[in-house]
Amino acid sequence: MQVENLNVETLRWRDGRLELIDQRRLPLEFEYVACETAEQTAAAIRGMVVRGAPAIGCTAAYGAAVEAQRHAAASRQHFDAALEGAFEVLAASRPTAVNLFWAIKRMRDCHVRMRDGTVPAEAAALLDLARQMHSDDVEINRAMGRHGAALIADGARIMTHCNAGALATAGHGTALGVIRSARDAGKHVSVIANETRPYLQGARLTAWEMVQEKIPVTLATDNMAGHLMQLGRVDVVVVGADRIAANGDTANKIGTYTVAVLARRHGIPFYVAAPLSTIDLAIADGSGIPIEQRDASEVTGFRGMRWAPEGVLVVNPAFDVTPAELITGLITEKGVIERPDAAKIVALFGR
Amino acid sequence: MQVENLNVETLRWRDGRLELIDQRRLPLEFEYVACETAEQTAAAIRGMVVRGAPAIGCTAAYGAAVEAQRHAAASRQHFDAALEGAFEVLAASRPTAVNLFWAIKRMRDCHVRMRDGTVPAEAAALLDLARQMHSDDVEINRAMGRHGAALIADGARIMTHCNAGALATAGHGTALGVIRSARDAGKHVSVIANETRPYLQGARLTAWEMVQEKIPVTLATDNMAGHLMQLGRVDVVVVGADRIAANGDTANKIGTYTVAVLARRHGIPFYVAAPLSTIDLAIADGSGIPIEQRDASEVTGFRGMRWAPEGVLVVNPAFDVTPAELITGLITEKGVIERPDAAKIVALFGR
Repeated sequence: MQVENLNVETLRWRDGRLELIDQRRLPLEFEYVACETAEQTAAAIRGMVVRGAPAIGCTAAYGAAVEAQRHAAASRQHFDAALEGAFEVLAASRPTAVNLFWAIKRMRDCHVRMRDGTVPAEAAALLDLARQMHSDDVEINRAMGRHGAALIADGARIMTHCNAGALATAGHGTALGVIRSARDAGKHVSVIANETRPYLQGARLTAWEMVQEKIPVTLATDNMAGHLMQLGRVDVVVVGADRIAANGDTANKIGTYTVAVLARRHGIPFYVAAPLSTIDLAIADGSGIPIEQRDASEVTGFRGMRWAPEGVLVVNPAFDVTPAELITGLITEKGVIERPDAAKIVALFGR
Repeated sequence: MQVENLNVETLRWRDGRLELIDQRRLPLEFEYVACETAEQTAAAIRGMVVRGAPAIGCTAAYGAAVEAQRHAAASRQHFDAALEGAFEVLAASRPTAVNLFWAIKRMRDCHVRMRDGTVPAEAAALLDLARQMHSDDVEINRAMGRHGAALIADGARIMTHCNAGALATAGHGTALGVIRSARDAGKHVSVIANETRPYLQGARLTAWEMVQEKIPVTLATDNMAGHLMQLGRVDVVVVGADRIAANGDTANKIGTYTVAVLARRHGIPFYVAAPLSTIDLAIADGSGIPIEQRDASEVTGFRGMRWAPEGVLVVNPAFDVTPAELITGLITEKGVIERPDAAKIVALFGR
């Protein structure tokens, strides 16, 4: 299925409500679902209609804005209660991506600033802020793309894990943004997409985005990564991030750590592309990052199909942590820091 | 689905024909398919009705025997031609597992010895030899199990990849045989089964075998292996093999190499359990082992379900090669050799 507009709108504000591409159905179906309340928005995040740390952040901001719009004609007391409820339900939707909490904090800060004014003015300001975060995210991704593209050689065969693409952000993508920008800079690049069990974001979403972009993409099962590196078929790895600790330890989709270990063995550069909003300075190192455990049914099969026998135990951590020492460079909107550590990361915020 | 007889008969000779558990349908359905010709037997190997290096070897021996039985009343000339055809079609069924070629060679040697005698006598001898190889394989697995069980500590949490169980052999299993024997020796062991995309032998077959045996088994996607080791949840890795080069380099199911690299990083012992028939002294090292490439449809989905978009390229190597330097020990029916190398492997054949 080809989509007319290559600039896929992962999320959009239309007719007074939030609309999200239903990523559960991609690539077989392409359709938007509407969120008219914060609760619906939280359910969409929890149920992975939308996923990817930056996209979750923007979605949560709109989720608060949609609730504010609903109550724009209500009393101040009623409005404040509804908004607090929205912040709570959105914050409880998924635990690992820090962009979610960062976005909610910005919306809450706006609320605190404006709660002595009128309700309609605050509701309008909250929507404006969500829109601003949305367009900022695209700009940030384009800046990351420019910085990251400089690291990608002409002809590079780039392995990526999960989907850190336009679908994981407000547009352009983090890891896939680097790849798009490299291609736009005239480099002939190709992509190896690890399928990323259990939710298959690589097979479904990254493969789909790259096909849309006409960037050659080869799909592999996750366990082929080592073999492909052994064969010399991988020049560089670029992945996204869900939360980065103050020392550079990086939580990203389950399996990222394995790819990083393999890249190190084979001397292949391993880059993380993420905006500053993914960095959580309050967490010293990766051991403090909460790892979401998801439902067993994702592992025992896929969608309605079950292939594992009854009686089996299951683990389903959604993320793992790659220690900073395995990361060649961190690509941000403020530039690339090589061999990230606590001092370099703090300095980044001062740039 | 519980099966009455715990000693699952992966293959059996019944009513003058070969019967195989249809492993494509496990664990959802448990049924046998019959092979009445060598061509049907080769198709069953190719189509993965039966898989696993030792099981493929036994199946190929029976595949020649079934063809010999079919032509037991034919002329010598006709019989010889049919048997040669059988050897050829069976040898072409799958390229990586050396047990296949080893079994065919033993059957062919028997044919060469007996071709000056009567056809019925040779047909009977070929069937006897297939049966002998079948029962030998079970005995070999039990011997491997005894040797390997001594390496497993009480309480060990054992990671395995793919299915090197009763279903991959004539019975008991190689890697899972070690686990069964450890349990039978009174040790409390548990298993982490990597699901083993694309064909899901871990999720479907290893999980099923362990549930049958009431050995606690936890299913994980392949990309969780590194994370589980990071968390300290893996004490030892035991896998099977499809072909072992003279220097100890080991071809096994795709993903094995990745697990070995991770085990090394975490200081976790990594064992390969395989009979001598899996060792190919004619191949100096892993670079000479042919790696089967299978159909793209296995990677773009599972069974009838497709989840990858049109337009994506696909790789589907069925095996990878783990260099000997990553292997803590090779468990064989003649004992365990630590840090296998060419000299130790040659010496093994002299024991």
